[in-house]
Amino acid sequence: MSTDAFSQRLSAVAEQVEAGLAAVLADASLPGEIARPKRLMEAMRYGALGGGKRLRPFLTIETARALGVVGDAPLRAGLAIECVHCYSLVHDDLPAMDDDDLRRGRPTTHKAFDEASAILAGDGLLTLAFDILADPATHMDAEIRVALCLGLARASGLGGMVGGQMLDIEAESAASPLDDSAIRRLQAMKTGALLRFAVEAGAIVAGAPAARRAALVKYGEALGSAFQVADDILDAEATSEQLGKRAGKDAERNKGTFVSIHGLDGAKRLRDAFVQQALAALDAAEFQAQGDILRQAARFVAARAK
Amino acid sequence: MSTDAFSQRLSAVAEQVEAGLAAVLADASLPGEIARPKRLMEAMRYGALGGGKRLRPFLTIETARALGVVGDAPLRAGLAIECVHCYSLVHDDLPAMDDDDLRRGRPTTHKAFDEASAILAGDGLLTLAFDILADPATHMDAEIRVALCLGLARASGLGGMVGGQMLDIEAESAASPLDDSAIRRLQAMKTGALLRFAVEAGAIVAGAPAARRAALVKYGEALGSAFQVADDILDAEATSEQLGKRAGKDAERNKGTFVSIHGLDGAKRLRDAFVQQALAALDAAEFQAQGDILRQAARFVAARAK
Repeated sequence: MSTDAFSQRLSAVAEQVEAGLAAVLADASLPGEIARPKRLMEAMRYGALGGGKRLRPFLTIETARALGVVGDAPLRAGLAIECVHCYSLVHDDLPAMDDDDLRRGRPTTHKAFDEASAILAGDGLLTLAFDILADPATHMDAEIRVALCLGLARASGLGGMVGGQMLDIEAESAASPLDDSAIRRLQAMKTGALLRFAVEAGAIVAGAPAARRAALVKYGEALGSAFQVADDILDAEATSEQLGKRAGKDAERNKGTFVSIHGLDGAKRLRDAFVQQALAALDAAEFQAQGDILRQAARFVAARAK
Repeated sequence: MSTDAFSQRLSAVAEQVEAGLAAVLADASLPGEIARPKRLMEAMRYGALGGGKRLRPFLTIETARALGVVGDAPLRAGLAIECVHCYSLVHDDLPAMDDDDLRRGRPTTHKAFDEASAILAGDGLLTLAFDILADPATHMDAEIRVALCLGLARASGLGGMVGGQMLDIEAESAASPLDDSAIRRLQAMKTGALLRFAVEAGAIVAGAPAARRAALVKYGEALGSAFQVADDILDAEATSEQLGKRAGKDAERNKGTFVSIHGLDGAKRLRDAFVQQALAALDAAEFQAQGDILRQAARFVAARAK
């Protein structure tokens, strides 16, 4: 698959995800809801719509597609994961957290609205993620829906993403920068767990057998690691204008990063090694041509410009 | 059932809930979690342990018991709902929200820790709630687990509790106090939806037939309404010392309340009418003696001193 064809697929899925998010964030209430307050819905849409590569739902949708499953199940699983990703950005940007004014080239949610609205919009997006997964519209099989709920909770909760953000904040006030193993654990929790689960969710909705699912989890893990190292490289090399958010934050805060520990060239070698691990995992999953999009995805996260 | 016997039952369940929360908030990781950061766990335990009537899990456990079901299923469903209740208190107390320093007679979580830890502790508790419900340890039947996930998401999300908090914050900056119907909607969302679901969750784990479940939902709704009116009465009558949190907030903020609209006596009549509705719903559910604890619970929420 050519890079152009991959980019087109990425854009097509992103459009599908944008439309899907707009639908689940519409003003009309679902059964069991009392009302959807206008300002809350606006803040949630602001935090979730209009940007982002939609990499996580792309991984869910393309993993399921490689396993022969397309349609609402992988799309809705991907929407739920993207809701969690977007809530984490809204909360991480808050003044008490990373205190960022700019995200995807626009004012952050608490800047465009206010802090209370941003906190509630994040809470609402997190809750909505489980609503989407548990809804029979996602899959007729309750076992699959509840496996998605459990997997998402564990990837994004105290032992995953939320815990990773806590470690990240603690690192900033630590006496010395983190060492390599501490950074790996922090990153595996903060961004790795959800990326890994995005792949696993595709395997869950497709009902992949255990061995294949395990190989795909390894792919997701390696891709997540490549993503994190690439992120540190980007933060060191790119400008704020290129990123659409503040660049050079890591150095400014004296946190340990893959670049500060391994140097720029060392970090690039590490990133490339993770990409190779991801490709090897797809071979272990016995993916031939049907794995090409996922192979491109691993190269893409390593080479992306923002 | 005597008032003393009811108080004893309430205390016994509260102890069970406290122990259950301490167990799910232990430092040891579950499968699929990478690590549980120390400070995050401390903040989550601070926000969840050591206080509260545990009314919501009590309703879940006692509803299931009245339907003949005891054990882990109703307890764990109750723990999940209590996690959501506690997260909502931690986030609502934040400076950007209600800005409270005192809760259950102790400094609020952001005062005892810091704002970032409180935001993350809340996010962690919310996510943990769905982890608990989706875990096979809650019930062997995936249909029941996923019904709990969906019900909790809808009661506590944008069209329920989170939405209600948004309306509450908006009411404070509104030009004029809310009228009766606006207050009812706000309260039904902010506190009513989760109380109602606490009862419904008991019916779900017990596999109650549809008509009985519907009657129990009406009981939960009426009990929730009685609770809200009683809350306004308490806020108007009690001292901060009695409440363990700041009293007289409603009047101070010029929000409409059931007391400001109906007067103290009118509010008390309204509260008692909701208690009667709750009792009638238990009769409609064809509960005889096995409904006595739930009948006492309805009277208790109306008469409680804090």
